Amino acid sequence: MFRKISVVGVGLIGGSFALALKKAQAVEQVMGVGRSQAVLARAAELGIVDRIATSMEEAVDGADLVLIATPVAQTGAILAALAPFLQPHTIVTDAGSTKGDVVAAARLALGSKIGQFVPGHPIAGRESNGPEAALADLYVGKKAVLTPLPENTTAAVERVASAWSACGAIVHRLSARQHDRIFAAVSHLPHLLAYALVDQIDRAPEAALLFQYAASGFRDFTRIAGSSPEMWRDIALANRAALLAEIEGYASQLARLKTMLAVADGEGLQAMFANAQRARQAWQGAIEAAEKQPNTGGD
Amino acid sequence: MFRKISVVGVGLIGGSFALALKKAQAVEQVMGVGRSQAVLARAAELGIVDRIATSMEEAVDGADLVLIATPVAQTGAILAALAPFLQPHTIVTDAGSTKGDVVAAARLALGSKIGQFVPGHPIAGRESNGPEAALADLYVGKKAVLTPLPENTTAAVERVASAWSACGAIVHRLSARQHDRIFAAVSHLPHLLAYALVDQIDRAPEAALLFQYAASGFRDFTRIAGSSPEMWRDIALANRAALLAEIEGYASQLARLKTMLAVADGEGLQAMFANAQRARQAWQGAIEAAEKQPNTGGD
Repeated sequence: MFRKISVVGVGLIGGSFALALKKAQAVEQVMGVGRSQAVLARAAELGIVDRIATSMEEAVDGADLVLIATPVAQTGAILAALAPFLQPHTIVTDAGSTKGDVVAAARLALGSKIGQFVPGHPIAGRESNGPEAALADLYVGKKAVLTPLPENTTAAVERVASAWSACGAIVHRLSARQHDRIFAAVSHLPHLLAYALVDQIDRAPEAALLFQYAASGFRDFTRIAGSSPEMWRDIALANRAALLAEIEGYASQLARLKTMLAVADGEGLQAMFANAQRARQAWQGAIEAAEKQPNTGGD
Repeated sequence: MFRKISVVGVGLIGGSFALALKKAQAVEQVMGVGRSQAVLARAAELGIVDRIATSMEEAVDGADLVLIATPVAQTGAILAALAPFLQPHTIVTDAGSTKGDVVAAARLALGSKIGQFVPGHPIAGRESNGPEAALADLYVGKKAVLTPLPENTTAAVERVASAWSACGAIVHRLSARQHDRIFAAVSHLPHLLAYALVDQIDRAPEAALLFQYAASGFRDFTRIAGSSPEMWRDIALANRAALLAEIEGYASQLARLKTMLAVADGEGLQAMFANAQRARQAWQGAIEAAEKQPNTGGD
């Protein structure tokens, strides 16, 4: 149970966290922090926050937990702004899509208070953004990954884990390095590949004709190319080492495909396609089975 | 209005064609042709076909129109089998995903009767296959592309167009070459890219861990990697010239991404992502607007 939680960035991710904790009756007061008064006022109207902080000092004062749910590139500056007011009992966490860069920025901003920062990443989202998009059940059954630091106390990590469990999420723990490698492969690379395909078609001399015949396969494959360019620029830059390794691997896959097509190696093509189909179906099956499990809230 | 139509391959594509024409009261009798008696019997049970042909001769005899809706690699053999029985008034069409190879096979199989073959490709599908998956409204509002041959009479092309219009489809005309180039870019390449990504993740030492964290972006991006490996091997081989050109282009896109990441060119990444987002949103908008138009059945 939290008495006061402050949420920096009251959009989809931060707003849903606040709504979920309120629904679970796990928090007494939620304070909203942000740069836009209009967005904060809207969040108050929607019952996401109970009070709006007029300064970082007010936001941090007496807070049990601070969640930073802004674009990931702002995390360092926000931590630096709140560091002077950080009381010993307050725990800070974040919701950024990359962790290595956030940890580096946090060390710089927090110095000897780094043990109070527990890095996190809830794996949930929607197409829409802003406080209007926030949902009390956004995290139900979804993963929340924590990448604890050596300086974190077990109690601090447990406290953050308990907040995500109260939101209905399943808490997982990884190292920041593991996290960034995993998400480079299964999330960041696919986003870049989808952007690259749409950009390629758009640059073709016959672009209008090509788009005219694009159908449902194209629609699903490129859905993530509708994502925010600024957000994905930041993620790509923040995780570029891991992402470069994945792109290298993918370039080898393309080279394999090219060779198999050039020599009309039907057996080789079918073997790759069949392996992918089998793996995709196994993954889908595992996901569906997991979604049928009751959410125990453990990790 | 057709008196007798024969459908070779009474699965999703052929079965839906038959059901749609029956619903539109555009056909008196549908005859089913195929290798599996069980599938044909099921199609008869489901009201897709009125009679089952016991020979290719019986199937073709007196037919106004023959639709070949089998895997595309079988088209040549089927055309060769029906050629000897082809009467002058009968028109043959197909539903294959590639057209250059089908036209070449048709010329070989039909010889001087090539003018009776009007190549086609309805742009519609479902996850499931077989006669059970067939739907009378599968083609409503969808595109049906015809790639007429110089030898086709206007009347023959119109006749095939009228059948697809009766199914609710919007008839488009392209050259076989245009068709294959377009679908290499917007359909065949994305399928290969999705297979390649899933195969890459599955081959990673930490594959199980990677799949565990794959979420909704991965799900949509890789949905088409669940498609039939045999079918996509055939399509890839049939259209390999156009597909190789698209893969070359995509390899250049990957090289651009690699360079931008290596030198941390945030502006360049954002420019590519923003162009793709804009193009994707414009495409989505155009698709949604088109879906709101009443289906006029014209082309």
